[in-house]
Amino acid sequence: MLPDIFTCWHDTEFRIIAGFRTKHTALTKRDVLTAATFSAGELENLIELTERMKEMRSGQVLAGRTVALLFFDRSLRTRVSFECATVQLGGHCLNLFAENELYGLEPEDRVVMDGSAEEHVKDAARTLSRYVDALGVRALDRSRSWEVDRQERLLHAYAKYATVPVINLESTLEHPCQAIADIVTIKQNLIDLKGRKLTLAWTDHPDPKGLGPCHSLLHVATMLGMDVTLAHPLGFELDEETVGQARTNAADSGGGLRIVNDLESGLDGAEVLYARAWGSTKYWSDPEREAMVKRSLHSWRIDEAAMARTANALFMHPLPVRRNVVATDSVLDGPRSVIYDQAENRLHVQKALLTHLLG
Amino acid sequence: MLPDIFTCWHDTEFRIIAGFRTKHTALTKRDVLTAATFSAGELENLIELTERMKEMRSGQVLAGRTVALLFFDRSLRTRVSFECATVQLGGHCLNLFAENELYGLEPEDRVVMDGSAEEHVKDAARTLSRYVDALGVRALDRSRSWEVDRQERLLHAYAKYATVPVINLESTLEHPCQAIADIVTIKQNLIDLKGRKLTLAWTDHPDPKGLGPCHSLLHVATMLGMDVTLAHPLGFELDEETVGQARTNAADSGGGLRIVNDLESGLDGAEVLYARAWGSTKYWSDPEREAMVKRSLHSWRIDEAAMARTANALFMHPLPVRRNVVATDSVLDGPRSVIYDQAENRLHVQKALLTHLLG
Amino acid sequence: MLPDIFTCWHDTEFRIIAGFRTKHTALTKRDVLTAATFSAGELENLIELTERMKEMRSGQVLAGRTVALLFFDRSLRTRVSFECATVQLGGHCLNLFAENELYGLEPEDRVVMDGSAEEHVKDAARTLSRYVDALGVRALDRSRSWEVDRQERLLHAYAKYATVPVINLESTLEHPCQAIADIVTIKQNLIDLKGRKLTLAWTDHPDPKGLGPCHSLLHVATMLGMDVTLAHPLGFELDEETVGQARTNAADSGGGLRIVNDLESGLDGAEVLYARAWGSTKYWSDPEREAMVKRSLHSWRIDEAAMARTANALFMHPLPVRRNVVATDSVLDGPRSVIYDQAENRLHVQKALLTHLLG
Repeated sequence: MLPDIFTCWHDTEFRIIAGFRTKHTALTKRDVLTAATFSAGELENLIELTERMKEMRSGQVLAGRTVALLFFDRSLRTRVSFECATVQLGGHCLNLFAENELYGLEPEDRVVMDGSAEEHVKDAARTLSRYVDALGVRALDRSRSWEVDRQERLLHAYAKYATVPVINLESTLEHPCQAIADIVTIKQNLIDLKGRKLTLAWTDHPDPKGLGPCHSLLHVATMLGMDVTLAHPLGFELDEETVGQARTNAADSGGGLRIVNDLESGLDGAEVLYARAWGSTKYWSDPEREAMVKRSLHSWRIDEAAMARTANALFMHPLPVRRNVVATDSVLDGPRSVIYDQAENRLHVQKALLTHLLG
Repeated sequence: MLPDIFTCWHDTEFRIIAGFRTKHTALTKRDVLTAATFSAGELENLIELTERMKEMRSGQVLAGRTVALLFFDRSLRTRVSFECATVQLGGHCLNLFAENELYGLEPEDRVVMDGSAEEHVKDAARTLSRYVDALGVRALDRSRSWEVDRQERLLHAYAKYATVPVINLESTLEHPCQAIADIVTIKQNLIDLKGRKLTLAWTDHPDPKGLGPCHSLLHVATMLGMDVTLAHPLGFELDEETVGQARTNAADSGGGLRIVNDLESGLDGAEVLYARAWGSTKYWSDPEREAMVKRSLHSWRIDEAAMARTANALFMHPLPVRRNVVATDSVLDGPRSVIYDQAENRLHVQKALLTHLLG
Repeated sequence: MLPDIFTCWHDTEFRIIAGFRTKHTALTKRDVLTAATFSAGELENLIELTERMKEMRSGQVLAGRTVALLFFDRSLRTRVSFECATVQLGGHCLNLFAENELYGLEPEDRVVMDGSAEEHVKDAARTLSRYVDALGVRALDRSRSWEVDRQERLLHAYAKYATVPVINLESTLEHPCQAIADIVTIKQNLIDLKGRKLTLAWTDHPDPKGLGPCHSLLHVATMLGMDVTLAHPLGFELDEETVGQARTNAADSGGGLRIVNDLESGLDGAEVLYARAWGSTKYWSDPEREAMVKRSLHSWRIDEAAMARTANALFMHPLPVRRNVVATDSVLDGPRSVIYDQAENRLHVQKALLTHLLG
């Protein structure tokens, strides 16, 4: 943590303006674009800091600072919990709903901008970096190409050009703030994480949902030594590179990762059952085909019978949830469900994260 | 008023999370969904508190607290006055424009959510209750069924599931904050309310406007002993149950309630003339029919001749107003008009209300 | 600067409400609708105050006060810099996105409001004046008539009816906050402004952009004695009245103003090159014709060859900019570009302006 409120800046191009005191320049800024940003040790520190954040009524570590949130997609939890986190730390939170309020943005370099985009991300990011102390970005690309979307061009263009830290508020590949809140919630209940059995179960859903929460949780859970089972139908494989990284994590941490293609074997012995729908990367370019495939997958739904197969598992879901499609009311509202604790922990994790980045 | 900033919470399901201090639990939370929420004595206390609020520059009773406002319909006065009220009390106000920013919401229980709604009100309300200290909701349903719309499903689902107080920012049936501001404005001018003659006059308008402001004012005015005349054309009857309750109020308070179907007899002797258009509950399912009926009702407009029939009445309207349709410029801008005082009193009433609920 | 926080109010119709302390009444309020609002001496004071604002971490001159911003058009810099400016001065900033959140507005007096507008600007402005301490308005009219649009009816209706200061956040004719930030940026680099050569160069652009930034800068630069060259193709003349006023300014200040219709002679000898596209007032009613005319104007683009003709000019642009259409990446990112300093100075200028108006 840096002593001066401006040392988080690292604009090597920053010009010293004659006659004006200007911002200090630090060597690096820290973006949080993926859950892989943090080492296991840093994650443990963040979790500990999160627990202290719950105790604190409010601090003033963000006094005089502004966090701007840019939403290119809808949000309830992320938007409200980030704004409350910033305000509880004494800061100012500025929300920008990109679709309605801002100019169309160009993320690619060296383009002749004679199309519909009115502003380059370079200019938006550098301008905002002159006004605010951190940027949150939610951008879920949905072209028909998985290879294009997984590059997360808009998010990475912001990170490249912003001179203040950029925090991923959910992208095509990742949702790191959600995953850290999830792991904090698991730790509150299981105390120790090493070797504990977490099942990440795909569920039915009318829409092709983003893969971010699952990827980020997979990363964090394997890094902290959990024994993870990934259960999904064929055709709904997670991103290859992400799964590969999770295998490496598990090898390093003494955790495990296995993949099964039926829900039942995923349930057996689970101590934590994390349900979430996600879209098929295989059918990313063909949502109609995906919808057709899903007609035979309605049984991928968590009900009391599914819960009964687990080892009295905690039930988790990152919300919003389609009730009685993803999981039944009796599970969502049942005694083992911690879905609202997950949501509340977003607030505390983000206070810890902002303190870590800017405090 | 409660001493601890968290005692307003009453989540009986609230789980004690191992190792974390959690929020205190109070026995009840207080929602403000209708003007009928308050007894006559409570109303008088609120009015008195409002007057004190005008004196105060700012307090800090909301320090460290957040009020979230959810708008499912457009707003100027409510949105700005609530945000200013919260900030003037030292709190943080968070605005959510539901139509553009949030997920589609399901208000009904036990539904299989395979339609367009992405999130259940239960989950949105419980999540928000973990982040904020009070929720304001503006939701004006407009299906074609009066029986359905008068149930105010979205508002009541929020009230049912939120564990923090829910404040009605205007619904199909009610607009309690407006009505209390109106009564404060009347009291500032007439000093005593008992037996004073208030006429609530329907007026012409191109659209079928909501009935909330009239219902809530009818309730409050009869409860405080005013002698109310309701003037509207046949077919524009207010909600039966609301009118019945107002009759009971009037009987209890020594006030009066009569209904006339011509504007002129409504004007005679009025000390306060409150103009407002509202949609026909009779033709709720058939707006084209309502528009046709209204072709012969253009004379239901307040002009100087109408004002001259009153007992030098104060002129009131809750705004926004269609000038020269509902009332003429000369009346709206005339010496007896208090339309901007009504608007300003929204601010002070809401400071009183937030202090009452959370202070 | 006024000692009491309420003396900026001048509502001559303001009624004293029995039993309530009400706001003080000052003789005048000060709107900032055009750059012509300020005398040369006042401009110099504002520039000096801006420099002091950069030094300050934050003040509390807006403690307890609210600035509301009304956007009828998209914004990034203006919206974020104004919100940050207000918050850095201890105030509360309220953003209203008129298109999605507010009622349709009628700016004309004495209209029978039976059309689509639900509220008169008179009522919106007077209501807001009861809640907030200053209003910012961005409204870029785009009917097909230049004579109509240059009247800026919505902005002027707000100024007429608001009893608090109204600040132009960009209109058809003006963008005063941008121009003052521009002049501060020039002064930071050239130190002295008198007689220095500023070229304001029209550039290519796919859309007919507003003329506000150019008009306001033309005004401010001639008032402070700069030697201004205006370079644009035939058919892209600026507003006649604005140019006439700039000629008068130049005569008074010892500055200069010449107009050329080729880019090259505009570049020769320039010490500051300010590039900006703007729409043709001549073809205001016929955008298709304008687009046709512009097909032969693609060479009006600033590249390194153009920069080489200048006297090592500073390169300026108010952003957003169409990269490689208006100017090349190499110029925008080059060593003489101060585009982000211009953007940053918006923040400091607006802190100075708010302090000037409300402090």
